[in-house]
Amino acid sequence: MTNVFTDAIAGDRRALSRAISMIDDRVDGVLDAIGGLLPRRDSRPGAPHVLGITGPPGAGKSTLTNRLISRARAGNERVAVVAVDPSSPFSGGAILGDRLRMEAHASDRGVFVRSLASRGHIGGLSRATGQVVSLLDAAGFGTIIVETVGVGQSELAVLEVADTVVVLLTPESGDVVQTMKAGLLEVADVFVVNKSDRPGAQRMRRHLELAVELDDGPWAVPVLLASATEGEGVDAVLHAAKAHLTWCEGEGLGVWTLRRAAGRVRTFLDLVGEDARAATWAALNSEHSDLRLALEKGSINPYAAAASWEAKP
Amino acid sequence: MTNVFTDAIAGDRRALSRAISMIDDRVDGVLDAIGGLLPRRDSRPGAPHVLGITGPPGAGKSTLTNRLISRARAGNERVAVVAVDPSSPFSGGAILGDRLRMEAHASDRGVFVRSLASRGHIGGLSRATGQVVSLLDAAGFGTIIVETVGVGQSELAVLEVADTVVVLLTPESGDVVQTMKAGLLEVADVFVVNKSDRPGAQRMRRHLELAVELDDGPWAVPVLLASATEGEGVDAVLHAAKAHLTWCEGEGLGVWTLRRAAGRVRTFLDLVGEDARAATWAALNSEHSDLRLALEKGSINPYAAAASWEAKP
Repeated sequence: MTNVFTDAIAGDRRALSRAISMIDDRVDGVLDAIGGLLPRRDSRPGAPHVLGITGPPGAGKSTLTNRLISRARAGNERVAVVAVDPSSPFSGGAILGDRLRMEAHASDRGVFVRSLASRGHIGGLSRATGQVVSLLDAAGFGTIIVETVGVGQSELAVLEVADTVVVLLTPESGDVVQTMKAGLLEVADVFVVNKSDRPGAQRMRRHLELAVELDDGPWAVPVLLASATEGEGVDAVLHAAKAHLTWCEGEGLGVWTLRRAAGRVRTFLDLVGEDARAATWAALNSEHSDLRLALEKGSINPYAAAASWEAKP
Repeated sequence: MTNVFTDAIAGDRRALSRAISMIDDRVDGVLDAIGGLLPRRDSRPGAPHVLGITGPPGAGKSTLTNRLISRARAGNERVAVVAVDPSSPFSGGAILGDRLRMEAHASDRGVFVRSLASRGHIGGLSRATGQVVSLLDAAGFGTIIVETVGVGQSELAVLEVADTVVVLLTPESGDVVQTMKAGLLEVADVFVVNKSDRPGAQRMRRHLELAVELDDGPWAVPVLLASATEGEGVDAVLHAAKAHLTWCEGEGLGVWTLRRAAGRVRTFLDLVGEDARAATWAALNSEHSDLRLALEKGSINPYAAAASWEAKP
């Protein structure tokens, strides 16, 4: 296994792909292989620049990502994309149609695109994403884009690996903003109202600007208009992301450091929860367990069973 | 506390509201108070009929829920609505604007509407929702609607309490369907393409019909068109939901029973995971713990810390 990781870091793309599969599949021993790679990424912002892109389905995340890849390549920067796909707890890892469009870059050896199946629970998501980002960092990519579909809690957990989080919305995202406003403000470093040619784009922009103003955080979150399909506004997004990184390296270093620290604690807690769940599942399936049968028959309710489970070794 | 629960079950609305807050806040002793109420709901379908409504933000879930409340009230049935609001891990429980519209029914004593803050993690969501449904069941509501925003994993876990799950989409939901197809097919008992006056509604309907056909499950999932705002197609949704319930009571009883059994096992596992996370968080905050500091400083990485945590008592 060590060879696979060493080769991946040395630039062997096939080895990189295999190593990521091993992380995603939680192959035994991955932790040892990846362990030595972890500290670098956490020590300072932008080494590499990890850019999180999130937003509701249909907001245009993959289109924007494609545009950002092209811009980075024009500057001769190596780019990796980690697409976290929430469909897979059910499907086992569907490939998005949008993702296929990234294959335009498939022959470019400076671009590496990979979907994570993100099977299982929150802990699994942040575990795999964090480890993959560390590996891509070690492999020397200058920009790592983590793209997540959705605006739920599990997606936000993933974004804790990012230096800069771009929240992509559309003029139609009113319900998302209404529902998630506090959550969006908590994670967004840059707001982008995509599909800016549609009615309501300016209104959505003003609405977000007002929310940012009222929130009064340490970083003044810019609210941009873009049309990723047309390539309009993409340079401004890149510019805003780089400005945020510059802020993280200077005045915002304290904020950046606290976010990383909180992210590590939260990732640890997610992992402990996931491990407990997995260990309990294994125990339920052992031949000595009557509990699974009792739960299935309904002779014990899950709340009572969980309350007494904690008392066990 | 027992009095609050007894009064809630006897029909005291203020007590019902307080009891639900106690469940949502995980007040000590709630488990004992709610424990005796649990078995009934799981014993057979439709006692009461628990209807889950899910779909992406903006699909029109609250509008449909409002229409379904009116229909049920026309038949003199008592209806409770539990709205699970995913914003709250961040905001502490925002109220949706749409929800306010349900206040049209606020003076009707046959209708009870309540949002759950759904704070915390997956286990917390399914725990609170399951317990609240059990309480509303005991309080004699004939129909309980559980409305969740979003299509993510945590929302799907909540829907395990439902007899019948209605998945609401719009003609624009192509990306959602593409991303979540397997997950949607796994949970949907009824598909509704809402906002059917918009372009692409028929195409979306045919797409879903084909998916249902290929899936070839034991229950032939109907795909309906509706315009909840106009009140069109709402009777058909209600009819389909009742037809599904009738199926659950007869030919589909085995499927219903298995779903309940799997739901109890999954709820148990979610709770164990959540409890482990909470206990670990408490341990990190105890004065004897150096681990939190080490995680925050980055002198230990969360993967290694979680791996060695399991070895501890």
